[in-house]
Amino acid sequence: MEISIKTDVLKGNEDQAAANRAIFNKEGITALNIMGSPGAGKTTILERTIQLAKARLKLGVIEGDIFTTKDADRIEGQGVPVTQINTGGACHLDAVMVNKALKELPLAELELIIIENVGNLVCPVEFNLGEHLKVAILSVIEGDDKPLKYPLIFRESTVVLLNKMDLLPFCDVNLENMKQDIYSINPQIKLFEVSARTGEGMEQWVEWLCRLVR
Amino acid sequence: MEISIKTDVLKGNEDQAAANRAIFNKEGITALNIMGSPGAGKTTILERTIQLAKARLKLGVIEGDIFTTKDADRIEGQGVPVTQINTGGACHLDAVMVNKALKELPLAELELIIIENVGNLVCPVEFNLGEHLKVAILSVIEGDDKPLKYPLIFRESTVVLLNKMDLLPFCDVNLENMKQDIYSINPQIKLFEVSARTGEGMEQWVEWLCRLVR
Repeated sequence: MEISIKTDVLKGNEDQAAANRAIFNKEGITALNIMGSPGAGKTTILERTIQLAKARLKLGVIEGDIFTTKDADRIEGQGVPVTQINTGGACHLDAVMVNKALKELPLAELELIIIENVGNLVCPVEFNLGEHLKVAILSVIEGDDKPLKYPLIFRESTVVLLNKMDLLPFCDVNLENMKQDIYSINPQIKLFEVSARTGEGMEQWVEWLCRLVR
Repeated sequence: MEISIKTDVLKGNEDQAAANRAIFNKEGITALNIMGSPGAGKTTILERTIQLAKARLKLGVIEGDIFTTKDADRIEGQGVPVTQINTGGACHLDAVMVNKALKELPLAELELIIIENVGNLVCPVEFNLGEHLKVAILSVIEGDDKPLKYPLIFRESTVVLLNKMDLLPFCDVNLENMKQDIYSINPQIKLFEVSARTGEGMEQWVEWLCRLVR
């Protein structure tokens, strides 16, 4: 019973996701779904990405959180359109929530929408939001065992940003093993080593993103 | 519809959790449910806890992971009974999974069972496993905004371990704000500042744990 219900929920989500995708395509908008653990650095990466990209790209943001508007407040400080989804307990965004949020963004003025999902390495991956690509954020400090323990996010993502590279000297992490395991799950994945805090590697990622959108 | 189904699932889980609790009580076992984000340091804390406590406490471990036996392999290296649950995709342990795992542990020889949940700051909190208390692990590097963004785990936990204290000088985290927010959610929570990597603060936590069990 549980399985068939889950199938129904995911099927309903897929229908709404297709509707969202049609909106993105009609408006000429590229949509990204950014996912990662709590504290992986999703919002800091987003802030730094906006700073580097906003002169070149017309972008808007959808912030997903269980509670609080802390992340949307931070993004608002960057001077781009942002709307907040509070899931009120749910551990992931779904396509219906994103559809509602789209009504609050000036779509005709945008060419890129970045959706920041709830901090969770598991559940968000199963819910298609209509995005064109998924971006995984993994901070190196989380440990080199994480790719094989949470493979789905790496299998489904087009890009992975390995964040907090500045902390690598202070933790017992084998970066080569971490990268090898990611590539073993998804040989095509585009991987950037970054530190949103120091800015290291962020220009390469933003350059790639700008080329993708154009 | 979704809400009533969720209620049924949680109700079924509560019944099995009560059965697990009865087993723990009959065998004179204290049971802990350890929860936190991927990479918060749950397994490393567990290894260090076992090293410090195994001469004083007869303990066993249930390891929860979506895939792999990496964590159980690490715990086995500590020379205590351990059994692995692979959820095969599910983002949390539930009471039925734990009940099956209990059949593989030498219950009559144990006085403490530590259950390490799937790495996830959200979903595991909703599923009672029959444990006597929940323990939250939050690494300081995850950021001082996390308690208010993920309040449920702090509300439901008896203890919180703030881990990776050795990395505090290298991140932009206000420890006092983090602690204040945790206490604002749960004024009774017992808080330990630790580093499983350096051992800092671990003896106080283990001392508290030994007194709890005895």
